Amino acid sequence: MDYNKRSLELHKKFQGKISVTSKVPLDTQDDLATFYSPGVAEPCRKIAEDKEQVYTYTSKKNLVAVISDGSAVLGLGNIGPEAGLPVMEGKAVLFKKFAGVEAFPICLDTQDVDEIVSICKAIAPTFGGINLEDISAPRCFEIEERLKNELDIPVFHDDQHGTAIVLLAGLKNSLKLIEKDISDIRIVISGAGAAGIAIGNLLLLAGAKDIIMCDSKGAICGERGDLNPVKSELLNRTNPRQICGTIAGALVDADVFIGVSKPNVIKAEDIGRMADKPLIFAMSNPIPEIMPDDAKKGGAFIVATGRSDYPNQLNNVLVFPGIFKGALEARTQITDDMKLAAAEALAQLVENPTVDKIIPGPLEEGIADVVASAVMGVGKERPL
Amino acid sequence: MDYNKRSLELHKKFQGKISVTSKVPLDTQDDLATFYSPGVAEPCRKIAEDKEQVYTYTSKKNLVAVISDGSAVLGLGNIGPEAGLPVMEGKAVLFKKFAGVEAFPICLDTQDVDEIVSICKAIAPTFGGINLEDISAPRCFEIEERLKNELDIPVFHDDQHGTAIVLLAGLKNSLKLIEKDISDIRIVISGAGAAGIAIGNLLLLAGAKDIIMCDSKGAICGERGDLNPVKSELLNRTNPRQICGTIAGALVDADVFIGVSKPNVIKAEDIGRMADKPLIFAMSNPIPEIMPDDAKKGGAFIVATGRSDYPNQLNNVLVFPGIFKGALEARTQITDDMKLAAAEALAQLVENPTVDKIIPGPLEEGIADVVASAVMGVGKERPL
Repeated sequence: MDYNKRSLELHKKFQGKISVTSKVPLDTQDDLATFYSPGVAEPCRKIAEDKEQVYTYTSKKNLVAVISDGSAVLGLGNIGPEAGLPVMEGKAVLFKKFAGVEAFPICLDTQDVDEIVSICKAIAPTFGGINLEDISAPRCFEIEERLKNELDIPVFHDDQHGTAIVLLAGLKNSLKLIEKDISDIRIVISGAGAAGIAIGNLLLLAGAKDIIMCDSKGAICGERGDLNPVKSELLNRTNPRQICGTIAGALVDADVFIGVSKPNVIKAEDIGRMADKPLIFAMSNPIPEIMPDDAKKGGAFIVATGRSDYPNQLNNVLVFPGIFKGALEARTQITDDMKLAAAEALAQLVENPTVDKIIPGPLEEGIADVVASAVMGVGKERPL
Repeated sequence: MDYNKRSLELHKKFQGKISVTSKVPLDTQDDLATFYSPGVAEPCRKIAEDKEQVYTYTSKKNLVAVISDGSAVLGLGNIGPEAGLPVMEGKAVLFKKFAGVEAFPICLDTQDVDEIVSICKAIAPTFGGINLEDISAPRCFEIEERLKNELDIPVFHDDQHGTAIVLLAGLKNSLKLIEKDISDIRIVISGAGAAGIAIGNLLLLAGAKDIIMCDSKGAICGERGDLNPVKSELLNRTNPRQICGTIAGALVDADVFIGVSKPNVIKAEDIGRMADKPLIFAMSNPIPEIMPDDAKKGGAFIVATGRSDYPNQLNNVLVFPGIFKGALEARTQITDDMKLAAAEALAQLVENPTVDKIIPGPLEEGIADVVASAVMGVGKERPL
């Protein structure tokens, strides 16, 4: 199917994807008097007396803002807030579809960190949570960190943690198949932006000991003089053998390749030089770091991508609806322990992993509930 | 009916009033590939090439932000953004109910004029229009003025202009009944906040020549040394006979009393000293400046209030859905001419006005369409 053509036609026909509807009846004079003047004054008074009641009498409790500045939209780059809006609307309707969470897209006409932080803080009274989306690194790290510290609602940068969680879930099931432990394997990550750094951090938390992060200039190692502060800091925790040079070089004897970078950065012969039963997670969208057929030719044991037309689709949609469902319900900030619990729960949804089935499909039933329960299990001990 | 009790119960039961739903199907892998990855990239690319296409491929065209800082909510005062949320949610669902316009509430945790202006500008890419709500005077004047000048989407402060338009419509039909012309009558307005000043301005545009504005200290006249700049400026255009003193004094021989102030500021005997067939528009909510029964006792010929349990309910809901429907469709800023056209169209919806029917009821069919047509008629000549 030509998804591009169909997408344009249907986006135009429906004029976007979101609609704001009423949960309450508005058909009679009594309805108007109840839900608008004069009745509406009563919940206002109750909330004015006790701000906490905003969770009882308004939509806040189950409502997420999907916020982007359009600076890193899909693989399209810095295309601005208007052009990012179709993605944010899409995210909003997926929240509803998969977790029953209400979500509303807001694309911002600023890429200034301070301004984005103050806007998010200013609009926070309306929302139960904030999902940051498609904001470029390294600004996204500071924005998320500050908002998590300064707001009393959960904040989550999906491009970082959604991607990291779904990757970890897929990796866990893949490691079962090759019978290796995460603490014994060598991992190469291509891409040191939002997703790559979050993946590196989560894998370390999950027990990984040997990760080589690579950016467009190759392995991030001590010899490099061009590292930003975030990448420099990574050096303390990654690349224990201090490998420098190209991605291809870093891949020699590696067990796992993880790509969150751009199309065609590795070749079949690079995979040929990896360890036995290499695992390839090539998640660049829509064109992966290596196409699955080429990866298999190179000897890949398992190949996963972000694509729906190949097996093992690693898609954030498996994660963010359930993460927020749990965090909103438990009214907690989203912690590292919750991310680990979500990845484990997601992995366990596949009872008998195979090379073509390391992760649930996005349309399988009940995924968000399982992820939400895992988050809430941890959340109970960590109230905001 | 005890609307307060019912309102609390139902706001809690439904957990607020708004829901964000999908306009598109999301049931199959093909749907996901069309409306999310990879298909969603295509409308993003088109908008990145030509920003104007955001009106074609997203929900922006028919989507209004209902924005408040919670500083002047109903008659409840400065109760803050959380406590204002039930009103803004209500506004959002009324937009949808009466005009098919999508609207989303955003309550801001700041009351700083510059900050509110920059937040509205920053979130504007998502929205086709901005409805300002329950922001206190005089800040509301500057915020609206600056946003109208700096944004390319319609901006409308409903408390000012919605109220002024519905009042003018009601006044027009009332004047037909007493066979007087607006240029010959004496008008006293109680309340010199957002609504009062907007009403004064619109009545002057509609041809009124003798308006006395009053605030809590009485008539605004040249002798007053305590006037803010907005009130001082009013002196150039109102109070031609330079009446000073109390509202009761100003009302002697007046034809029209308009209240947008607070409960019980005039008495039956004040009405007794007005001109023949006095018109009383007592719009303080939920308790008017004088109760209708008392006004009638004092000799009022016509009494209108904001209440649904008396005849002649002057409610903004007759105005804002249609105003935005027209302005969004025509992609125009909302001008004074449009406000006058909307008031005239609204007045003409009552074919044969009577003392108990000077304005349509909020649940009558087709009101928003008539108002929208009036706005679009003017809008055609005034593109943004």
